[in-house]
Amino acid sequence: AKQNTNIFSNRGMTLEEDINSTNTYYRQSNKAVIHKKPTPVQIVKVDYPKRSAAVITEAYFKQASTTDYNGIYRGKYIDFEAKETKNKTLFPLANVHDHQIEHMKAIDAHGGICFIIIRFAAHDQTFLLPAEKLFSYWNVKLNGGKKSISFDSLQTEGYPIPFQYRARVDYLAIIDKLYF
Amino acid sequence: AKQNTNIFSNRGMTLEEDINSTNTYYRQSNKAVIHKKPTPVQIVKVDYPKRSAAVITEAYFKQASTTDYNGIYRGKYIDFEAKETKNKTLFPLANVHDHQIEHMKAIDAHGGICFIIIRFAAHDQTFLLPAEKLFSYWNVKLNGGKKSISFDSLQTEGYPIPFQYRARVDYLAIIDKLYF
Ligand SMILES: [Mg+2]
Ligand SMILES: [Mg+2]
Repeated sequence: AKQNTNIFSNRGMTLEEDINSTNTYYRQSNKAVIHKKPTPVQIVKVDYPKRSAAVITEAYFKQASTTDYNGIYRGKYIDFEAKETKNKTLFPLANVHDHQIEHMKAIDAHGGICFIIIRFAAHDQTFLLPAEKLFSYWNVKLNGGKKSISFDSLQTEGYPIPFQYRARVDYLAIIDKLYF
Repeated sequence: AKQNTNIFSNRGMTLEEDINSTNTYYRQSNKAVIHKKPTPVQIVKVDYPKRSAAVITEAYFKQASTTDYNGIYRGKYIDFEAKETKNKTLFPLANVHDHQIEHMKAIDAHGGICFIIIRFAAHDQTFLLPAEKLFSYWNVKLNGGKKSISFDSLQTEGYPIPFQYRARVDYLAIIDKLYF
């Protein structure tokens, strides 16, 4: 009977599910309009059966050329990537792709609010890391240094995202403090 | 030998291809960061063959819940839909879905720049129509009136988009005049 004792627990929900439900809440409460972009798929073959919907019968996952989420909040353009790791001590930068970093740099240069959300599933802790700080870690990697962000350094460089009942990953609470 | 005489001709390019190439040019010239969202697909079955990429073997097209394009320009959030019609005299509003209108209204309310690009292929003419004006036509339809936007009224209510060599659908030229 221990199940569901704590309704605020993340148990069983992926970071993506939590962010999607948070964004639905943000939209329904008229706070922000932020969506997950559809998974990019290379469609190769489509069947058109009579009297029923077209069926894609061959397709492949494509690497995303941008980030997972974007939208508008308080009149500003918002853009972010979300990553979950099972690793207990570090977040491997190999989880982020070059073109995602290029995209985030372009957004940053154009005045958008850009960041990454990183969840350590084993610790049930989720952090927001502003893009500029991600770029610093990335540069260290490019220069032959560490290829990861340690859980410990995220405690100081990142911002723990509060877990709310309806806004399960309430990242806009951090954005309010950092950018407005 | 008449082929390709006019390099500025749209012949053979769809509106989507033209906008994608325009956005690539905008990004490469550091003018704006605007992307087409991937086609939303409901993935049902995936095969994972040994030693090769995962293959999606059953999937269906989903109706888009938002618009085709979004991004950032001059620090502002930009969001738009693009539609092409072969009809010579009118653009049927049935080409736009309720939830797209709802999305555009939300973007508008949050201070984003929102519009629709409509191409009449038969006339090789492409117009930008600000979201507010689209909402007026939509309301007429909801109230039992006309279910379309005539080519003629787009000549006065819309803004013809200039065709440039590198920016094949140079919609930001109109955005500069309307919103800045
Ligand atoms: Mg992700
Ligand atoms: Mg479209």
